[in-house]
Amino acid sequence: MQNIKLTIQYDGTKYRGWQRLKNPDLTVQGKIENVLSKMTEENIEIIGSGRTDGGVHALNQVANFKTKSSMKPHEIQDYCYKYLPEDIVVTRVNVVDERFHARFNAKGKKYIYRILNTKYHDPFLRGFVNHIPERLDIEAIKQASAYIIGEHDFSSFTSTKAKKKSKVREIHEINISKKEDVIEIMFYGNGFLYNMVRIIVGTLIEVGTGEIKPEKIKDILNKEDRQFAGPTAPPQGLFLYDVEY
Amino acid sequence: MQNIKLTIQYDGTKYRGWQRLKNPDLTVQGKIENVLSKMTEENIEIIGSGRTDGGVHALNQVANFKTKSSMKPHEIQDYCYKYLPEDIVVTRVNVVDERFHARFNAKGKKYIYRILNTKYHDPFLRGFVNHIPERLDIEAIKQASAYIIGEHDFSSFTSTKAKKKSKVREIHEINISKKEDVIEIMFYGNGFLYNMVRIIVGTLIEVGTGEIKPEKIKDILNKEDRQFAGPTAPPQGLFLYDVEY
Repeated sequence: MQNIKLTIQYDGTKYRGWQRLKNPDLTVQGKIENVLSKMTEENIEIIGSGRTDGGVHALNQVANFKTKSSMKPHEIQDYCYKYLPEDIVVTRVNVVDERFHARFNAKGKKYIYRILNTKYHDPFLRGFVNHIPERLDIEAIKQASAYIIGEHDFSSFTSTKAKKKSKVREIHEINISKKEDVIEIMFYGNGFLYNMVRIIVGTLIEVGTGEIKPEKIKDILNKEDRQFAGPTAPPQGLFLYDVEY
Repeated sequence: MQNIKLTIQYDGTKYRGWQRLKNPDLTVQGKIENVLSKMTEENIEIIGSGRTDGGVHALNQVANFKTKSSMKPHEIQDYCYKYLPEDIVVTRVNVVDERFHARFNAKGKKYIYRILNTKYHDPFLRGFVNHIPERLDIEAIKQASAYIIGEHDFSSFTSTKAKKKSKVREIHEINISKKEDVIEIMFYGNGFLYNMVRIIVGTLIEVGTGEIKPEKIKDILNKEDRQFAGPTAPPQGLFLYDVEY
């Protein structure tokens, strides 16, 4: 039995997200499982490091699967490249220890959210940024982000309905940079709740437009209630950037 | 009567090209004319600097049209932004001299062709590059491009069937650069024949893979016959970059 680790890039535009649905063609997991099942003539289930929502992209999603096949990593990679659609590419294949589990062993994740801050949209970037025409105050966003860094109960910043599970996560770092008209917000933390990055970004955008003050973030966190945070920012600006093991 | 100059950006992926067809929704010209006709309540025809083929993009296409409307440039721009699809953006609007003609007055054009030279495709660039997995020899391509610069009969490098029209054009400059894995070839000339950039690129790629020697370009030009050049490179790597007046 081999345990195979995949590193995967995808343009999520066309998909309903990572996690397999009844129709496998609607999800990234479904597409990859179909190809691997055909390749191995086994019924392959892959374990992703976590889900991404519909329309969210990934630069380095990680997944693993077990197989009786003795195919070599480069053969697996070439097969995936040949049979996967153009918007999903397996960029690395490694044989890993049998105990490696892409979800349980993930120690940290990085996400990047991209905002195009110009009056008019850019036809070439539109699938990969959130376009905000109002001028955003980067300094205010940076101030606000300082309140988010650290270990907190992020109940205000998630759409999850699982009440019993802990909503405590630690964000180690938030880095905000601007290249030309694109603002990139990088989040690095030990884990992220459902919609967490998108709700934080939706709230930071309200800080950037001046609708709410940076200090307000502290209150929102303390409320531990989704209704006090800003809207969920749209998926096309979000990239799962890296998974740390 | 106002003569209005438009500068236009478009992602050509979904269109059959610039030039209006019976179904206006299939072409960039058709889309823009529909919006302007609705805006002015006139039957607007726009004159583009030239056609672009299906799937070709533009960063600065130029067009003009005449109208009785007294709308101001920023009003026209805002109207276009509101009613055009996301893949077409009018980036500048100017009132120009009544004699200005976007096609006849064009003195020069710049095109950029982008090649992704990596083993595997990139899911985020795939609509905007031509992916060539074989390693390309940039120095050989540069040598070959030197033969193309200057005034030549480009009959070997066009798909046009209009036999009587002159095929003489002057290419002032070809600039080849590589950023990470993307090779950009910039062509600057006084005019370009139908499919000319794409056939030149298709031939330069054959030089880059070693299929033909750089010096061979000279012979191909002298043949003045399309069958001696390389294949027509695909449209998605091509951008109309600028039009000079």
